[in-house]
Amino acid sequence: MNTGFIGLGAMGMHMARNLHRAGLLGGCWNRSQPKSAALAAETGCQAATDPAALARASEVIVICVSADADVLGVVAALAPGVHPGLIVIDCSTVSAATAREAAARLAKLGADFLDCPVSGGVEGAREATLAIMCGGTEATFARAQPVLAKMGRTVTHVGPTGFGQSTKATNQIMCAGVIQAVSEAMAFAKAEGLPLDKVIETLGKGAGSSWYFVNRAPFMARGSFPAGFRVRLHDKDLKICRDMAAARGVHLPVIEMTLVHYARLIEAGFGDEDISTIFRLKDALFSDGGGAPT
Amino acid sequence: MNTGFIGLGAMGMHMARNLHRAGLLGGCWNRSQPKSAALAAETGCQAATDPAALARASEVIVICVSADADVLGVVAALAPGVHPGLIVIDCSTVSAATAREAAARLAKLGADFLDCPVSGGVEGAREATLAIMCGGTEATFARAQPVLAKMGRTVTHVGPTGFGQSTKATNQIMCAGVIQAVSEAMAFAKAEGLPLDKVIETLGKGAGSSWYFVNRAPFMARGSFPAGFRVRLHDKDLKICRDMAAARGVHLPVIEMTLVHYARLIEAGFGDEDISTIFRLKDALFSDGGGAPT
Repeated sequence: MNTGFIGLGAMGMHMARNLHRAGLLGGCWNRSQPKSAALAAETGCQAATDPAALARASEVIVICVSADADVLGVVAALAPGVHPGLIVIDCSTVSAATAREAAARLAKLGADFLDCPVSGGVEGAREATLAIMCGGTEATFARAQPVLAKMGRTVTHVGPTGFGQSTKATNQIMCAGVIQAVSEAMAFAKAEGLPLDKVIETLGKGAGSSWYFVNRAPFMARGSFPAGFRVRLHDKDLKICRDMAAARGVHLPVIEMTLVHYARLIEAGFGDEDISTIFRLKDALFSDGGGAPT
Repeated sequence: MNTGFIGLGAMGMHMARNLHRAGLLGGCWNRSQPKSAALAAETGCQAATDPAALARASEVIVICVSADADVLGVVAALAPGVHPGLIVIDCSTVSAATAREAAARLAKLGADFLDCPVSGGVEGAREATLAIMCGGTEATFARAQPVLAKMGRTVTHVGPTGFGQSTKATNQIMCAGVIQAVSEAMAFAKAEGLPLDKVIETLGKGAGSSWYFVNRAPFMARGSFPAGFRVRLHDKDLKICRDMAAARGVHLPVIEMTLVHYARLIEAGFGDEDISTIFRLKDALFSDGGGAPT
């Protein structure tokens, strides 16, 4: 399937290369042109002059951009080139409402849409081991399989349009709460003077354990938080989650608390560290000799 | 090693039986006598008239009671019968300060103390698969091995007196945060109309996952929270954690928030359900059409 890729960022560049290796990448477009020119030079694909031209030349378009407005902007820019049967796969993390809006606009032009946010980070993008959570019709999902299968390892059709984004949002909320849990517990353990490596080994096997505890508590024990899942990106995602909950009239405490913490971390210059850097704030509570709950 | 057991509650009765099966149980004592009489009839061990008499007849005493005051009360009651070389193993979940106080009192009488809180619940107690986190000297830990090994599967010497309790407290803080994370995410997923079983299957393999998500999110999907780790017991443990943090002048947000939630759940009659019942509160936020963060 002749596929055009839009959005050659840290994730998208790797995903596009994987499509090229599978012989699927026909062209690309990127807001800043040097990146699309570079990928074209590297792979022999066409660097399109604009999204509409890319749509005209493609059977499938994959989008991987940053924010809700970017997705809707790309959909608008695609419009003049959209043709019946075109599949647009959006791998960005945005709101379910944006997914439904994009799908509705494309449906009017005869094209099909899948919201397919991913998890697994840059490493998952490079190794094509991403988990991809898909929303859309069964039929479109089935048609898009050849492309999705080359970008990720676990590709799940969750339900209708928007369900991919809602599933991703569920995951991002859970990550926030778990990192709160792990960082607070580890700061307590450190204040108690416990041997942290032994605590991680012991509790890692128990009912309080989690992926973040096993994989990120060691960062906290060492006081070093190399970029894995950056605060800045999770902050962006949690704001989407907050807006989605707010659309139902709800403020969720774990999201609210974590956004307060992230604002402090970003202001203090830790926005590009892994989210386990939230340990810094919990640890400071103890070193400052106390303070009110935050 | 002739071992006396004190505290035949839901956990202690099973642990004492496992010591009996290993030929180690010499006697027992319980605040309410019928339980010690029943265990004596069942196993042939001596139902002691008081803790001091049990101490006199034993090389090792295992304590498994509820609260800090209970542990110190038992230690005081043991005193007249304490003899040099006696090992007192406290499997209760109490504060590290209580462990240090108990150890100091017993040391004056020539006895050795280990704080050995456990995790793994009633099932772990019955199957002798508990995780046991031990604080005390290396030498005492080594001498107590034959007894500890018959009650648990993972027996870890974390460090000096009190370190067992601090490790357990770390675990209880983590459980609070993780169940907050899982319940908030699942309530969001339900409000979004997602197929919850598919969400659990998909996200259970990812970086947001945890023991509680894999094992308790299904309770949330079914809206049924059969007793596993009871709210009432975790509430008691978190109050110990809160006091331990407060002794360092710190209020920890995850603990504070969870204690507020548990007070509401206990008042509403859900204190004997599994802690995953916290989902009820998060779910209600959505069904009530919103509300302030709690």
